[in-house]
Amino acid sequence: MITPYFLENFWGDKNNGFDVLYHNMKHGQISSKELTDFIRERATIEEVYARSMTKLAKSAGNFSQLGTFAPVWDVFKTSTEKLASCHLELVRKLQELIKDVQKYVDDQAKVHKKTKEEVASTNGAVQAIQTTGVALQKSKENYNAKTVDQERLRKEGATQREVDKAGVKAKKATEAYKGLVEKYATAKSEFEQKMAETAQKFQNIEESHIVHMKDIIQSYAQSVDETHVQIGEVHTEFLGNMENTSVEGLIQKLAESKGTGKERPGPIEFEECNTAIATEGAKP
Amino acid sequence: MITPYFLENFWGDKNNGFDVLYHNMKHGQISSKELTDFIRERATIEEVYARSMTKLAKSAGNFSQLGTFAPVWDVFKTSTEKLASCHLELVRKLQELIKDVQKYVDDQAKVHKKTKEEVASTNGAVQAIQTTGVALQKSKENYNAKTVDQERLRKEGATQREVDKAGVKAKKATEAYKGLVEKYATAKSEFEQKMAETAQKFQNIEESHIVHMKDIIQSYAQSVDETHVQIGEVHTEFLGNMENTSVEGLIQKLAESKGTGKERPGPIEFEECNTAIATEGAKP
Repeated sequence: MITPYFLENFWGDKNNGFDVLYHNMKHGQISSKELTDFIRERATIEEVYARSMTKLAKSAGNFSQLGTFAPVWDVFKTSTEKLASCHLELVRKLQELIKDVQKYVDDQAKVHKKTKEEVASTNGAVQAIQTTGVALQKSKENYNAKTVDQERLRKEGATQREVDKAGVKAKKATEAYKGLVEKYATAKSEFEQKMAETAQKFQNIEESHIVHMKDIIQSYAQSVDETHVQIGEVHTEFLGNMENTSVEGLIQKLAESKGTGKERPGPIEFEECNTAIATEGAKP
Repeated sequence: MITPYFLENFWGDKNNGFDVLYHNMKHGQISSKELTDFIRERATIEEVYARSMTKLAKSAGNFSQLGTFAPVWDVFKTSTEKLASCHLELVRKLQELIKDVQKYVDDQAKVHKKTKEEVASTNGAVQAIQTTGVALQKSKENYNAKTVDQERLRKEGATQREVDKAGVKAKKATEAYKGLVEKYATAKSEFEQKMAETAQKFQNIEESHIVHMKDIIQSYAQSVDETHVQIGEVHTEFLGNMENTSVEGLIQKLAESKGTGKERPGPIEFEECNTAIATEGAKP
């Protein structure tokens, strides 16, 4: 249970805490859309990176197949392709996540719409205490003025008729003032009750909003981390493959694939001509 | 000490092992240039990624500062900036490495130029054994033909003058043939000795080439791995910062920064007009 910060901190002279909290709720929609934008942009960055890696892998695959070093390009090609795959996998996960966030954006908009209706009466109570407060102040001033008028006429020795006439006005002002004191008390009580409920409602909405945003971020961070682990495995594999590609192995491979023969040229001796065979061979 | 594969496997009928080994050495220059290309392209990819991350960090920094969630964008901004830095640091390291590889490309070209001069006499020995071999074969055929001619004339009862004339030709052919048998023996011995030395020289060059290439790759892989470790730290920090950004903390922060006041509206009582004070106050 979180401290009811909103209930405690959105009163004050001008009674505009309601407005501040209402707009704060609406800002939540901006935040969730911005979070979608952030994740979408990250996915785009990862995709560009992955496509460049795929291109780099292709380059490595197209490098010269000649020479002792040539077989090593296969190690680069395979490893770079795997790096590309890791990043593409992240893109896929982020795109799934974006769907979740967009669903949340829609749900959130619905909650806000419903809340707007639910807090309409609170908005009314805010208007009521404000207008009643102003009216009460004016009414009090009028009452004071009328009372002073009557007293002044009495002191200045005006006619009884004038004093009575002022008395009627003063009495009327008194009743209006008393009426507004009562009306204000009702408006104040209504406002306090509504505002207390609504402030807590707004806090609950914010709590649930932040919890949801944090869940999305958690899911985002987890995907990024999984990819990071996979990339680490690709690096380790690359190092292992490079270690297994020994200098001797490459030299041997070249000798086996390009070797021209193991036999050194034989000696050539003088061969005496055997005329019998030579003639035989020369016969038509 | 590596098995002398080149010494063993580049003989054979046509004596063109030298050509194969010479061209194999020259392919080493293609490999080292291709390795430069690979690392340069990787650096470019990392730079593009880093710049995009910097842009993404800026976006996060420019997201709405309103609402309960707003402070979380600072966590995203900082973390994304750090990711960008990690990749830029890798770019810097790879650019340093490219300088080393380019130095190697130059050194390698010098070694090959020097080697070409050193093995010129081997190339000569290859030419010698090939041309001598061909000449020997022709000379042997000529010797056989001339000997058979002389024998044929004798059997057919030709004049002594004719037989003697053919005898002179046969003797001349015999001497030429014997001379070439000797010349070939010298060429063969020269070829074997030169070719054995040169094959080993070519193998030494390839060994040193592969060792150098592997050193460069090792350095490349180390830079990539260091960056990977740093990125892991940035992720861990991000998760920690997100954990420290509690729902309660954000609610409290909003209440503190946007709060409108803790005082509920006070009661307003009916205040009886004190005409003495009111009149006093109304005096000009």
